[in-house]
Amino acid sequence: MTGSEFFFALDLFGTLIFAITGAFRAVKHELDILGVLVLSVFTGVGGGILRDVILGAYPPAVFTNEIYFFLCIGGGLLVFFTASHIARWWNLVKIFDAVGLGVFAALGALKGYEYGLGPIGVIMMGTMTAVGGGVIRDILVSEIPAVLATDFYATAAALGALALWACQVAGLDSGVSMIVAAALTIVLRLLAMKFQVHLPRARKFTAPLKKRR
Amino acid sequence: MTGSEFFFALDLFGTLIFAITGAFRAVKHELDILGVLVLSVFTGVGGGILRDVILGAYPPAVFTNEIYFFLCIGGGLLVFFTASHIARWWNLVKIFDAVGLGVFAALGALKGYEYGLGPIGVIMMGTMTAVGGGVIRDILVSEIPAVLATDFYATAAALGALALWACQVAGLDSGVSMIVAAALTIVLRLLAMKFQVHLPRARKFTAPLKKRR
Amino acid sequence: MTGSEFFFALDLFGTLIFAITGAFRAVKHELDILGVLVLSVFTGVGGGILRDVILGAYPPAVFTNEIYFFLCIGGGLLVFFTASHIARWWNLVKIFDAVGLGVFAALGALKGYEYGLGPIGVIMMGTMTAVGGGVIRDILVSEIPAVLATDFYATAAALGALALWACQVAGLDSGVSMIVAAALTIVLRLLAMKFQVHLPRARKFTAPLKKRR
Repeated sequence: MTGSEFFFALDLFGTLIFAITGAFRAVKHELDILGVLVLSVFTGVGGGILRDVILGAYPPAVFTNEIYFFLCIGGGLLVFFTASHIARWWNLVKIFDAVGLGVFAALGALKGYEYGLGPIGVIMMGTMTAVGGGVIRDILVSEIPAVLATDFYATAAALGALALWACQVAGLDSGVSMIVAAALTIVLRLLAMKFQVHLPRARKFTAPLKKRR
Repeated sequence: MTGSEFFFALDLFGTLIFAITGAFRAVKHELDILGVLVLSVFTGVGGGILRDVILGAYPPAVFTNEIYFFLCIGGGLLVFFTASHIARWWNLVKIFDAVGLGVFAALGALKGYEYGLGPIGVIMMGTMTAVGGGVIRDILVSEIPAVLATDFYATAAALGALALWACQVAGLDSGVSMIVAAALTIVLRLLAMKFQVHLPRARKFTAPLKKRR
Repeated sequence: MTGSEFFFALDLFGTLIFAITGAFRAVKHELDILGVLVLSVFTGVGGGILRDVILGAYPPAVFTNEIYFFLCIGGGLLVFFTASHIARWWNLVKIFDAVGLGVFAALGALKGYEYGLGPIGVIMMGTMTAVGGGVIRDILVSEIPAVLATDFYATAAALGALALWACQVAGLDSGVSMIVAAALTIVLRLLAMKFQVHLPRARKFTAPLKKRR
């Protein structure tokens, strides 16, 4: 198995896990089976589509290999029929989800770098690839995206993407950069889960303040 | 009237009907006249714009012929000033809406096929063209998109798009494929309305389950 | 300072102000610091990214000069740490916001015109550039976008964009067109604030009406 095959396998794995989390959200909202599949697909591949649409990479990568879609649909059907069983393995799903987060962040950041973006652009592409599917999922069920309010999640992806940019600028091989970036994101995310790390939250203030736009 | 003129007329008709449904949603939320027009326009042409942005078809088709926009604005103004009258014809609007659904699904699927997508991609493009405007409308008024939770609606579009793909792969003329796809979608949607067909919904389960991402 | 430098400075200024309003919304929802920065960035540059994605202008303009991002992040941090102080200057922020609205509307409309769009397309691009960031912000925190329901805000941008189209069609220099469009939007917005102008709102009607799609 070559390096790029290894990353391709991880990419497929992350897609499946993300699709499963999307399907669970659909189950929580009691959507019908189509809704479950739509949330599976967009959570699984939505981040990559968003990235490619913003970069102008046509057609978006997932359309060139339909195995991504079949994985999402498979994951969605699995959850639709066996949600209560999978739920017992939720801690495992969350660990796998951290792997997907790291792989997607590294892949998205590298693509942004290859398209000539600067450091902030690379961070945005990495983070968007990693959490964009989840944000679309949350918007579709009319929730405030979890990544904006809780947990150390998107931040892990952003730091991984930043690491990729630094590795590339330092002249490292892109395979090495990917491993560094993905590993950093995964480790940060798992540590944050274990130690319940949260970012500081904005405090509401009580100064008299008119309705604002 | 040639075949493509016929489809162009149906496309305009579908755009107008979709715009009317968008305007009604705006009225329900008591938006101002600008909000009514924005929902009219995005419900009418949003699905097509979304499809073209994902396919990388620039500029999106509706920008090349502004009659689409004028129809949306006309439909929006009509609803703004006469909503209570049009509401009496709601059953007719729903039947016309099924026609729009079928035409948009067929057009979107054909465009996806022409851009070289596989079967899932073609289904996504057809369905997105058909229901994307409605999804944007629902997101803008902060509702969970109706197509994810209720009715046999997007599914009819998806099956029509699949039929188009099958017809094209079988070597049929694209005009014939379009008619088959649109007719299938329309008939399925009308039958589902008449017999109140619903897809199975996900059941919430009560297994102990921690907050999940 | 040349004319284009002047507009570039105004563009940066508008980006910063928009970022500040985005950060305030995040504070209102008690997001964490990442959420504050995400809302800052997308409110500041989201409208321009949306415009460039629809026009097919790659990479979106903000990615070619990262100063936009740094301004957004700076504005977000400022609000995160000093929100209650800035809130006392809210009336000034709203006036500055009107300047940003005008500049963004003019820039977006000109870009739409240069890409060959017709009058409605130019109005859409101008308005989308001006209010798109705010709409993304509102969607992310699961609110109905304010521009659809209240105030004379997007309408000022739309009329400015229409003015730009008229000036360009009349053969005026694009710098002059920009000044006319931006000034018109700013003046209309400030007058609307001063005199509390609102567009007519749709009235809900009580005719018996079944659940509609």
